Amino acid sequence: MTEKLSDTARKTTLEPLLEAGWELDDGRDAISKKYEFENFVEAFGFMTKCAIWAEKWNHHPEWSNVYKTVNVTLTTHDVDGLSSLDVKLARKMDGLAE
Amino acid sequence: MTEKLSDTARKTTLEPLLEAGWELDDGRDAISKKYEFENFVEAFGFMTKCAIWAEKWNHHPEWSNVYKTVNVTLTTHDVDGLSSLDVKLARKMDGLAE
Repeated sequence: MTEKLSDTARKTTLEPLLEAGWELDDGRDAISKKYEFENFVEAFGFMTKCAIWAEKWNHHPEWSNVYKTVNVTLTTHDVDGLSSLDVKLARKMDGLAE
Repeated sequence: MTEKLSDTARKTTLEPLLEAGWELDDGRDAISKKYEFENFVEAFGFMTKCAIWAEKWNHHPEWSNVYKTVNVTLTTHDVDGLSSLDVKLARKMDGLAE
């Protein structure tokens, strides 16, 4: 069962993400990141790979795309905040963006 | 060469889109539409089809996705407003969403 990240988990799992360019949202318990690619094909290709993982894990991003830019926000609606699912998907997305 | 829609073109091409659920944006010359699908696979599948046409026509939407919802905004940066490319892509997206 998915639970909100504990204080300990925030230290150990969230801080590396913040160092990797993720930011905590103002106003709600969520993290966001802006990815920039070479062009639209690269940007949408990234989204396509992420989409398959998101569906496989049944945990979906809120995201937008303008040409070569992809903005992603992750949060877990079921727990009204960040959970380990967000950490897992954030790490996966960073890997897929490389 | 792409040009801003003329007043006549607005009447003939934009009005049918407004009747089909597109809305003129406040504050800039653009049209937007919210599409809702059965689930994430349907929503992202729609985006994937649109992405291929967008790239083929070298005219890309500004869009966002949250689970089964896709919000699209179309405008033509080169002419700082709506052009026939937006009308063409809007019609294509409506077709692909059916």
